[in-house]
Amino acid sequence: FDADAADAARDRQAELTKPPGSLGRLEDLAVALAGLTGDPRPTLADPAVVVAAADHGVVDRGVSAYPQRVTRAMLRNFATGGAAVSAIAEVVGADTLVVDAGVAGPPVEIDGAGDGTADEATDGTAGVGAIEVVDERIGSGTDDIATGPAMSRSEAVAALSAGVRTARTRLADAGIVALGEMGIGNTTIAAALTAALTGADPDRVTGPGTGVDEETRAHKVAVVERALAANGLDGGSGSDGDEAADAVEVLRRVGGYEVGLLAGVALGCAADRTPVVVDGAVSGAAALVADAVAGDVRPYLLPSHSGAEPGHAVQLDALDLEPLFDHDLRLGEGSGAALALSTYRAACRSHDRMATFAEAGIER
Amino acid sequence: FDADAADAARDRQAELTKPPGSLGRLEDLAVALAGLTGDPRPTLADPAVVVAAADHGVVDRGVSAYPQRVTRAMLRNFATGGAAVSAIAEVVGADTLVVDAGVAGPPVEIDGAGDGTADEATDGTAGVGAIEVVDERIGSGTDDIATGPAMSRSEAVAALSAGVRTARTRLADAGIVALGEMGIGNTTIAAALTAALTGADPDRVTGPGTGVDEETRAHKVAVVERALAANGLDGGSGSDGDEAADAVEVLRRVGGYEVGLLAGVALGCAADRTPVVVDGAVSGAAALVADAVAGDVRPYLLPSHSGAEPGHAVQLDALDLEPLFDHDLRLGEGSGAALALSTYRAACRSHDRMATFAEAGIER
Repeated sequence: FDADAADAARDRQAELTKPPGSLGRLEDLAVALAGLTGDPRPTLADPAVVVAAADHGVVDRGVSAYPQRVTRAMLRNFATGGAAVSAIAEVVGADTLVVDAGVAGPPVEIDGAGDGTADEATDGTAGVGAIEVVDERIGSGTDDIATGPAMSRSEAVAALSAGVRTARTRLADAGIVALGEMGIGNTTIAAALTAALTGADPDRVTGPGTGVDEETRAHKVAVVERALAANGLDGGSGSDGDEAADAVEVLRRVGGYEVGLLAGVALGCAADRTPVVVDGAVSGAAALVADAVAGDVRPYLLPSHSGAEPGHAVQLDALDLEPLFDHDLRLGEGSGAALALSTYRAACRSHDRMATFAEAGIER
Repeated sequence: FDADAADAARDRQAELTKPPGSLGRLEDLAVALAGLTGDPRPTLADPAVVVAAADHGVVDRGVSAYPQRVTRAMLRNFATGGAAVSAIAEVVGADTLVVDAGVAGPPVEIDGAGDGTADEATDGTAGVGAIEVVDERIGSGTDDIATGPAMSRSEAVAALSAGVRTARTRLADAGIVALGEMGIGNTTIAAALTAALTGADPDRVTGPGTGVDEETRAHKVAVVERALAANGLDGGSGSDGDEAADAVEVLRRVGGYEVGLLAGVALGCAADRTPVVVDGAVSGAAALVADAVAGDVRPYLLPSHSGAEPGHAVQLDALDLEPLFDHDLRLGEGSGAALALSTYRAACRSHDRMATFAEAGIER
């Protein structure tokens, strides 16, 4: 955190043509972003949304309202700009990077995508919205966490590394990155990770996800409890101490490829002083993993909404993030984080572009 | 309200590639906007921010932290794109229409503005941000409401008419309009209007405005009370009954030119089925006036933030508006309403652009 840049930003805020403090939280965000980026007038140019997709063996336990093949279909949907996050990214003027982190089955072939073709906003008033699709497959879906670890140690490390590499190459020019994901079954994974990393009770952090009924949710809680027990993460006498405290090991045991990749993106972005915006409960689980791997990533994790999934509030509390809005979102994909980009950009744009009292010839 | 269009939008929402209800309030907004506009897939193309500026005789009472000449200086600042709302409009891809509704002194001459020159976003990722400046001067500042009416009946009618005309000509192509304003002293005007139109106690609806201290705020309350009494709007025996119930008469007595003009914009937009987004307490006072003049404008009044000025909550409650966010804004100018445009556009863009399950080849 660059205190000098933050101080310079605070001084500038006092000179801009508005009553002091009248832009409320936007002023605080501009000052914080100045400190984070080291730029007294951060622009957050070229914002991006990264959407990582992967599959999860735990879907065999009947934890989702949708079959596993929907992950693959949605990856195509992201690639062709037909998803909610595609539309929202366009409105906020962000590019989208779609990452296959390990969808079940063979690599997804997408005609015409992956070449960075811009999908221009037809009304010309907002958004460039280029979409790029990349293959960073760690495997072909994880194993069932209810019976053992999701992946091998080398896969967990590879997922994190792929995320760091993605951040430092394909996202290197992004001024701010929204974290999105897709993977049938991944709210169960997120609940297990959140319980393991925060110590919260599984019942408190397990929600309806894409929309299962209360009976199925109760079943999800049981699956999460079983997964924690099967992986020595239930915090009781069966837990294996120090090793379980290693966040990479927690990721290996009850995580997912897309979660690991997003945690890596957060780590890589933070290393490059690029803020990342946390979306819902799955993105939040990735943020918890990144935070546990390297505590200095914390300031670079920015809030968006308060998600409907109950584990999200536990995550935001653990990460000390105050949401910007609550639209009762529970989609994931980065939809809420993408929408929040307009708030961060408005904070920085007004900070950068407003006239000072002196420039406007206004005496105070 | 077109129930068929809303029904069609609701049906479409159920077909889009996301779990039902997972976009939360964005889904509700898209359905509501379909009903309001009569378009099952509303686009809200060409969004605009209108910023109306005027002066107020009540500034002589010492109710503001800033001198009256700041209104004129800020009008120039809007015209040249140096204000907070200018930057936010650019981020959300909205054009700005700056209206001189009656700034004190001669008409403001602005070099190079008023020709609709586009102020392009330099990073190319968002916003067109054309700025147009127009003269709709009703007078050269209003009279002091503490001693009598702010304006003549013909001026009040002229302000409303100018707003309706502006909506139906210069804003005719806008798919959604954010209501902004500027005028030193106008939070005092807003408090008087809110008290008169809702019956709320002056102390409850009078706040620090641009940032006066508690002592000055208490003085503002006294000025508002005096204005209501001097204009027969104090609701007691001195009030003159039916005539005071006429919203145009309330506007004439304790209103302002920019408030009347914005109320007219709301009326004109509603007549053209164009939704308008309410900003802070002054914009909210204009919404109250419009609502009192013609109740069928109500559905077209959309919320943005919950403002820091206490009268704003009273206004939102009276108009049955649920804010989208709370960033502790207290600037006015349309800054919060402009920021909210990204939420409304995200709701409609996702509704319009997302693939259906059938289009994406996903079985449910």
